[in-house]
Amino acid sequence: MKITIIGCYSAMPKIGNNLSSQVIEIQNEIFLVDCGEGTQVGLRKNKINFSRIKHIFISHLHGDHYFGLVGLISTFSLLNRLADLHVYGPLGIKELIINQIKASGSWTKYNLIFHELSSNKSELIFSTDFIEVFTIPLSHRIYTNGFLFKEVNLPLNLNIDAIEKYNVNIAYSNKLKQGFDIVNEKGVVIKNSILTRAGKVPKSYAYCSDTEYDESIVKYINNCDALYHESTFLEKHIKLSKTTKHSTAKQAAKIAKLSNVKLLILGHYSSRYDNIDVFKIEAKTEFENIVLAEDNKIIEI
Amino acid sequence: MKITIIGCYSAMPKIGNNLSSQVIEIQNEIFLVDCGEGTQVGLRKNKINFSRIKHIFISHLHGDHYFGLVGLISTFSLLNRLADLHVYGPLGIKELIINQIKASGSWTKYNLIFHELSSNKSELIFSTDFIEVFTIPLSHRIYTNGFLFKEVNLPLNLNIDAIEKYNVNIAYSNKLKQGFDIVNEKGVVIKNSILTRAGKVPKSYAYCSDTEYDESIVKYINNCDALYHESTFLEKHIKLSKTTKHSTAKQAAKIAKLSNVKLLILGHYSSRYDNIDVFKIEAKTEFENIVLAEDNKIIEI
Repeated sequence: MKITIIGCYSAMPKIGNNLSSQVIEIQNEIFLVDCGEGTQVGLRKNKINFSRIKHIFISHLHGDHYFGLVGLISTFSLLNRLADLHVYGPLGIKELIINQIKASGSWTKYNLIFHELSSNKSELIFSTDFIEVFTIPLSHRIYTNGFLFKEVNLPLNLNIDAIEKYNVNIAYSNKLKQGFDIVNEKGVVIKNSILTRAGKVPKSYAYCSDTEYDESIVKYINNCDALYHESTFLEKHIKLSKTTKHSTAKQAAKIAKLSNVKLLILGHYSSRYDNIDVFKIEAKTEFENIVLAEDNKIIEI
Repeated sequence: MKITIIGCYSAMPKIGNNLSSQVIEIQNEIFLVDCGEGTQVGLRKNKINFSRIKHIFISHLHGDHYFGLVGLISTFSLLNRLADLHVYGPLGIKELIINQIKASGSWTKYNLIFHELSSNKSELIFSTDFIEVFTIPLSHRIYTNGFLFKEVNLPLNLNIDAIEKYNVNIAYSNKLKQGFDIVNEKGVVIKNSILTRAGKVPKSYAYCSDTEYDESIVKYINNCDALYHESTFLEKHIKLSKTTKHSTAKQAAKIAKLSNVKLLILGHYSSRYDNIDVFKIEAKTEFENIVLAEDNKIIEI
């Protein structure tokens, strides 16, 4: 699992401060999460192949998280995209985007499929054989979701010695990797557990931005391999974090600790702070394993 | 008169290829013309003071000319702007922008005043004592206006020798600069032409993007000091220019020649060309005085 930070600053774009957007790569699929203004140039900087983007998840309708979406959708058209594009975002996003495309007197040649979200409960919104994506209801000024990316049902590894010993036909490989027992030529069931070894451990990643401090999300993100939790402010601006329904670095770390995640990624920094190291220093008082998101940084999980 | 090119490429933003946007500075006023995605960062790069931007002119509703507007409007809010902002653009722009601001659950603290345009005739849409801005109806795939910026009624210079000779009270200076005759203490009329010299020659600048080759605009831009005319393509792609209702560099130069403008500024380049010098080479076959727009270039007129 690989996370490429396209942008990790809040509110307004500045030179060298890109707005929220990340590319999550899991099991050869890539997912774009949030799409602030400037995201498409950020994707180019990070050499993300546009045609690989098939699913875009928008957390909420504050501009710094989605004003780059309509431009990206238009660029896909200009590049003669034909593949379906799925957009998951708050109820209302479809009309906002479509009205802008209509006003331009054009239309996408590809299918643009909106999955509008309005539930306040966690939902499974995307799944393949190996990946599941759930919403994480967040508490912000407007309707907002985080997203939980989970690897599931990863294939088992074959135990070649056992396969040879039991003289199992190699045609059964996929069934074995999927966990099925098999029946040999003599009609005897051979347990899957004899013929396979543990596969890769499935990873999980939770993206939580924007949100105030909210312990109710812990149940969704428990034991995640990595948690991106917004830390717009430091504790010295905790009043501001309350009125704007954002979090401080310390609060993000408290959520990481309560959730027993393995790694905390901080981001969505207010640009009032000259140096983002202060976020890590503050969060370290609560939680040890911290990475600071930075524009164009790749984080392997 | 000073033009700062924020961006001058067409269609989609790329690394080092900003989308259409210019800052026109006239008589201490600044005007933003078009506002593609990324414009606000481009304005910062060019150290344009955001609070000086009071009037924004949008040529048409193709995304590369206005997708940066809603973000800029939001940024003005975040910067606690209080001064009025006037936006001049095609009918429909107000709803598109306002719906996005509404969806964010916020509102501007400043007055956001839309002047929606729908006429197919040239209109005076802005004026002060010294500046007039007219629309230039353009022929593109959707409703589009160019904009003509004119200095008008520039003050005359005082002829100090004559003023002393005729013993004119200095209190009359402003009246004299405005062209009025005066009456001296003996009741004698002294002609303005005796007491003043010619002032600065008023300049004019026409922004014409996007448009197909269209000689009907010549009457609006005749004798301009500078004409920005789009040159999306070269003649070798003239078929494409016809179907997309854009112009070639040669066509832009023909319009410059027919209009007897002093300077032609080329821009809105398709990014299919590796080197923009080719646009100048092609246009030079028709017109001599050419400047290539480049991102972050300042052109003094």
